Amino acid sequence: MSTFWCERAWLGGPDVRAGVLVDIDGERIDSVQTGVPAAPEGAEHLRGLVLPGLANAHSHVFQRALRGATHGGRGSFWSWREQMYALAATLDPGAMLALARATFAEMALAGIAVVGEFHYLHHDPDGNPYAEANAMGEAVIEGAREAGVRITLLDACYLHGGIGVAPDPVQKRFADADAEAWSERVDAFVQGSHVRVGAAIHSVRAVDPRSAAIVAAWAERRSAPLHAHVSEQPAENEACMAAYGQTPSGVLAEAGAVSGRFTAVHATHVSSEDEVLLGEASCFCCLCPTTERDLADGIAPARRLRDAGAIIALGSDSHAMIEPFEEARAVELDERLASGVRGRHGGDELLFAATASGYASVGWPEGGMIRAGALADLVAVDLDGVRLAGVRDRDLIDAVVFAGAAADVTDVIIGGRAVVRGGVHQTLDVARELHDAIGRVSL
Amino acid sequence: MSTFWCERAWLGGPDVRAGVLVDIDGERIDSVQTGVPAAPEGAEHLRGLVLPGLANAHSHVFQRALRGATHGGRGSFWSWREQMYALAATLDPGAMLALARATFAEMALAGIAVVGEFHYLHHDPDGNPYAEANAMGEAVIEGAREAGVRITLLDACYLHGGIGVAPDPVQKRFADADAEAWSERVDAFVQGSHVRVGAAIHSVRAVDPRSAAIVAAWAERRSAPLHAHVSEQPAENEACMAAYGQTPSGVLAEAGAVSGRFTAVHATHVSSEDEVLLGEASCFCCLCPTTERDLADGIAPARRLRDAGAIIALGSDSHAMIEPFEEARAVELDERLASGVRGRHGGDELLFAATASGYASVGWPEGGMIRAGALADLVAVDLDGVRLAGVRDRDLIDAVVFAGAAADVTDVIIGGRAVVRGGVHQTLDVARELHDAIGRVSL
Repeated sequence: MSTFWCERAWLGGPDVRAGVLVDIDGERIDSVQTGVPAAPEGAEHLRGLVLPGLANAHSHVFQRALRGATHGGRGSFWSWREQMYALAATLDPGAMLALARATFAEMALAGIAVVGEFHYLHHDPDGNPYAEANAMGEAVIEGAREAGVRITLLDACYLHGGIGVAPDPVQKRFADADAEAWSERVDAFVQGSHVRVGAAIHSVRAVDPRSAAIVAAWAERRSAPLHAHVSEQPAENEACMAAYGQTPSGVLAEAGAVSGRFTAVHATHVSSEDEVLLGEASCFCCLCPTTERDLADGIAPARRLRDAGAIIALGSDSHAMIEPFEEARAVELDERLASGVRGRHGGDELLFAATASGYASVGWPEGGMIRAGALADLVAVDLDGVRLAGVRDRDLIDAVVFAGAAADVTDVIIGGRAVVRGGVHQTLDVARELHDAIGRVSL
Repeated sequence: MSTFWCERAWLGGPDVRAGVLVDIDGERIDSVQTGVPAAPEGAEHLRGLVLPGLANAHSHVFQRALRGATHGGRGSFWSWREQMYALAATLDPGAMLALARATFAEMALAGIAVVGEFHYLHHDPDGNPYAEANAMGEAVIEGAREAGVRITLLDACYLHGGIGVAPDPVQKRFADADAEAWSERVDAFVQGSHVRVGAAIHSVRAVDPRSAAIVAAWAERRSAPLHAHVSEQPAENEACMAAYGQTPSGVLAEAGAVSGRFTAVHATHVSSEDEVLLGEASCFCCLCPTTERDLADGIAPARRLRDAGAIIALGSDSHAMIEPFEEARAVELDERLASGVRGRHGGDELLFAATASGYASVGWPEGGMIRAGALADLVAVDLDGVRLAGVRDRDLIDAVVFAGAAADVTDVIIGGRAVVRGGVHQTLDVARELHDAIGRVSL
């Protein structure tokens, strides 16, 4: 049993509470009391504003190595993808472990306590299975363990190089023989207190409808989360319409994929019918604004998706930056740019997207909130730095969401364990890990 | 004479140089040598990547007090303006000095060495001149002096509450009797080694064409920079077209304001004719992307403006955040969102906007570059933090611009003097100053 006394904490809604005592029993919160004026003896004092753990619901961890190397690029998503593939072609399980450990540790420093890793780099550079078929996925999981963060490995089925097109030489690393082979491979993962396993349909480009139905049935049987890239680019929509006479969301719905356990990643170019379809099923839509602006994807209709019934989650995707508050505020701010109108999403709604709804999207519905019974994941944000000093309590949630930075995160507790204290990761020299992990890959 | 040895420095162009020795004589750079393998005796060693000073070409410093208080707001620019006016109504010279000192010091920590303060809060709360007519402007200048940053006070002429409309009670604080009274008041400022004075036409809403011509003539006579808010909102264009049959840029051009000393601030909703007009005159266009997204202004056509001949500068305007690299990258990234195409502006072009062109826009054309004869303003960016660790030298400029943060700035030299060392302001406790300055105003 350990106890944290928080000067201020966010328990949901637009306001913060003062003097919040959080009792932790093992990995769970045992009780939460508000209005406790001072830290009782034996309680650890968390300064600033304490939030629940932040969730990064969409990550391709190896792409962290590309930071800086592709951002100034010309062309489009598709020319960027060539650069990303060149990196993907070179990685082995050791390089993957190093990148994952370093990048997940960078996430921990930013307050991220759980990550949904959309993993498709399965096989060796020739496309043959490793001796340990899940060597790459296990490297990712081990990286998260060493970084101290929870992970959901969203193992992605990837069969085709495009609709009706065989995988190209790089894509062979991604491809299982068929959806049955995918399912058999994924069944071999073992879950643990910090590890859950979910499914992903890479996209309607890479998975045909019959195979998508097999993946969806696997997720249903396992009560596991199911993610898919959906309508990130107009070209994907056009190819899908030409082949199937339906949008990607429509194809996935017909395959049985669209349900309350489904997360549509990006949902940038969804039709109004798609919005209704995803909303009525109470899907999650995972927006990744800093990547979507980097890749010139466009602006997802977040408010319309929410109005239809969908739930917004957030991801840092390609890790152009790892700034969870920027992902959150950009949902609102990008829509302001497109529309000329402010105030579609409140600060507390954006924070909910960054916490509880992200946890639920990646299959940890008992996390991302500070309440009895929830996972004991807490994040303290410094209010005495230059970005947030002087903000009034009534404005704190808006201030943190609209002006906070990863650099303001001081303490991160995951499952009751302090992973970050005073802005320092407790077991890893994160910058050194990043330097070494990126240095060993060829770009 | 002092000497800095920079591990790496940016001297312009897409690449960085290793081992750069910068000799400083007084406030100027005396010589620059590259390829010097180690720090000579007596030279101070600057780690990371050394840039020229960054320029913040558009600031309303008092609006820093609104951070967090208005970001979650609904409505539009115009409803936000009501909240901003409520703050403006309460400030006195003491409160202004405190806010200016704290906010300019926050800018120094972010690498900003020169600020263009677009100043319009001239008179007392009843609209009467202070006994010292420039008490408010002098408070702003003193704040910059105490924070250690260069300032151009861009004193704004503000006469009307809208085209043909008298100032409302709050706007009376902004308004001089007429442009001649404005000119007489502004002539009383004294320039100094850290202070220059320029002119601003608040907007075509607040200054009629005849008065705009008087302000423009003053700037011409003084060889001073001249700034104006231009086409920030469609409503401004519509009112201007209705009253004058021309766009704001057209009206200002006819008043003689549009020249190589002119900066069009925002230029969000300029017409294609305006682009040509501003470009052919080699104007500066100062974009303020983090404010423009906060206020739902829209996305300026930065690439088309550049193609026409205009020069992009950058400002943090309302100080929703003070993140110069975010302002720079957003010029490119917002256009990607709007267009679906990447690569309109290279990292080095964006860095030029953040440095030399910003300096020139606010009337310090001898600054913002590392070369013999230039102002001795240097900014060191940490490459060993989690955001930038592992980036290859060939990618450094893109990485700093697209993924760097104010928190990565370690050392700031302004006029040869170290204002920031190791991320710490050398004379002010900046967070405490912000806390106290914001705490004393009513919101």
